Amino acid sequence: MSKGITIALDAMGGDFGPEVVIPAAVSVLAQHPEVTLLLVGDKTLLSAGLEAAGASNNPGLKIHHASQQVEMDELPSSALRNKKDSSMRVALNLVKEGTADACVSAGNTGALMATSRFVLKMLPGITRPAICTALPSTKTHTWMLDLGANVECDAEHLFQFALMGSVLAAAVDGNKRPTIGVLNIGEEEIKGNEQVKEAARLISESDLNYKGYAEGDDIYKGDFDVIVCDGFVGNIALKTSEGVAKMIAGFIRKEFTRNPLTKLSALLAMPVLKAFRRSIDPRRYNGASLLGLRGIVIKSHGGADALAFGNAIKVAVLEVREGVPHRISDYLQTYQENRKVI
Amino acid sequence: MSKGITIALDAMGGDFGPEVVIPAAVSVLAQHPEVTLLLVGDKTLLSAGLEAAGASNNPGLKIHHASQQVEMDELPSSALRNKKDSSMRVALNLVKEGTADACVSAGNTGALMATSRFVLKMLPGITRPAICTALPSTKTHTWMLDLGANVECDAEHLFQFALMGSVLAAAVDGNKRPTIGVLNIGEEEIKGNEQVKEAARLISESDLNYKGYAEGDDIYKGDFDVIVCDGFVGNIALKTSEGVAKMIAGFIRKEFTRNPLTKLSALLAMPVLKAFRRSIDPRRYNGASLLGLRGIVIKSHGGADALAFGNAIKVAVLEVREGVPHRISDYLQTYQENRKVI
Repeated sequence: MSKGITIALDAMGGDFGPEVVIPAAVSVLAQHPEVTLLLVGDKTLLSAGLEAAGASNNPGLKIHHASQQVEMDELPSSALRNKKDSSMRVALNLVKEGTADACVSAGNTGALMATSRFVLKMLPGITRPAICTALPSTKTHTWMLDLGANVECDAEHLFQFALMGSVLAAAVDGNKRPTIGVLNIGEEEIKGNEQVKEAARLISESDLNYKGYAEGDDIYKGDFDVIVCDGFVGNIALKTSEGVAKMIAGFIRKEFTRNPLTKLSALLAMPVLKAFRRSIDPRRYNGASLLGLRGIVIKSHGGADALAFGNAIKVAVLEVREGVPHRISDYLQTYQENRKVI
Repeated sequence: MSKGITIALDAMGGDFGPEVVIPAAVSVLAQHPEVTLLLVGDKTLLSAGLEAAGASNNPGLKIHHASQQVEMDELPSSALRNKKDSSMRVALNLVKEGTADACVSAGNTGALMATSRFVLKMLPGITRPAICTALPSTKTHTWMLDLGANVECDAEHLFQFALMGSVLAAAVDGNKRPTIGVLNIGEEEIKGNEQVKEAARLISESDLNYKGYAEGDDIYKGDFDVIVCDGFVGNIALKTSEGVAKMIAGFIRKEFTRNPLTKLSALLAMPVLKAFRRSIDPRRYNGASLLGLRGIVIKSHGGADALAFGNAIKVAVLEVREGVPHRISDYLQTYQENRKVI
């Protein structure tokens, strides 16, 4: 029997805490009996939650007590200073000490970033962690980073993002030479800023599979496996995409409920509409990786429901299985050695 | 009878030149008989085009010869230096000398920006032109700028964008106090970069109707009338939106053609699908304003068809009618005077 996988869940994080984390955990365990999930948080609350969910005797679920919790609007600095026994911090400590293989949290992003960095430390050669996720494309999906961890990035940071994204795509998709794009705008002569141009040069001179500049619409075309950008731009692109998808879903709903005839056609089109909704359901894409740390940390959307949070746990399982941080660190080592040779 | 409106059309610009510009012009004239359209470009080609379209005797259409044209991939500096008789430059000259009230071009954005700036000059108090357009929202639309003219912007530029966007929204929508947002990301403590924070301060201290930070998804919610950002971010947001909308349209098409049953349901849902397609049809939103110039310049998408190019002409007509540049300049003057008083 292969070694089991243990994931620490910040059970108090996110907008809903145990209310979402417990059912998500139960549902993941039903599909992954080899996994152990540590519910980190208030033990009284969690015991009661498990009982209510009829999951008290689930052998894959264990409670690990933590007396505090990080608020969703708490400043990262305050979380670091005052919440040493928060469910988030304790879950990360479990990863640090090797009790857990990964941590999943729907808690406040800034605090999770800062605490992860403080507890787990960065991989050698990586300056900053980056938030990375797979976005749907007309083909399969596109890995995009950074999505909001780093507001201002220089060319070297973008290069590190390319490297980490490439390793992640290789590990998760089994794609040996993921193609990489640098997000840019297409106007001539006013094309790009200095960081972007310099990053493109760095990546194209490395042995990464650099494909060229990607424009905003390339994210969803699927012609690039990995697209890198600074966290400000990435976050705006991500949120803008959500906004467009929501607006379109709203238009469709409105049009189909306009009159009895359109309502009838909606009924007939139901299977199609369901498939459509599923294809753009952001819950299916929940679970962003905090890359560059000495450990696996997955950030779930704060407002995630059980289905979405379950997907974030599955991302963690996959990254543990593929040993993502080790792969990044191995790649970095080879890269640094080659750099010395040159 | 009110004074007629004259618009100079860069008839050779864009991917299709007269092939698109002539039918667009004919169709706009059918709805706006008070307008005169000057087709600027190769007179032999344009005469032949008018004849082929049966529009040789249309009193609203006049040809104005220009011997050159700016290529779509030509560098702005080259266009400025070598294309003094290009259809683009001549059309802008017609605005400069007062023969035309506005210019519409589907030509290369960089060249149009540079040539407009050179020929028309900036309004006093405005440092750089900005590209602004109305994007659809669940309510009505959101004016967004800059969409790609200025890759790097400081707080003062963003403030000027807010001012120009506010005047445009007021003029076109008859909205006296348009609400203004500064595009930003929502993460705590890593919130925004310095320019964005400083721009927010400048706008909130002015008498513009500052509402707060807008995130990417706010563009399509319709809670802000005007959203400002630098041209890099704006261009990425715009292109990303196009990408999402295209991907979704593709998903829907695929799902509806999956099997005979879904094809039948598509047939029944046709009116709804048509309404949906219309609601997100980017051609309806074609025609971006180059704001901040001493004259009205409208940039059409390079790949615009006649419907889309016609919409760009209509944007020009509307801005002429509302006297947008004068309004911006009046507002600026009042603003500068108030600033002196303080």
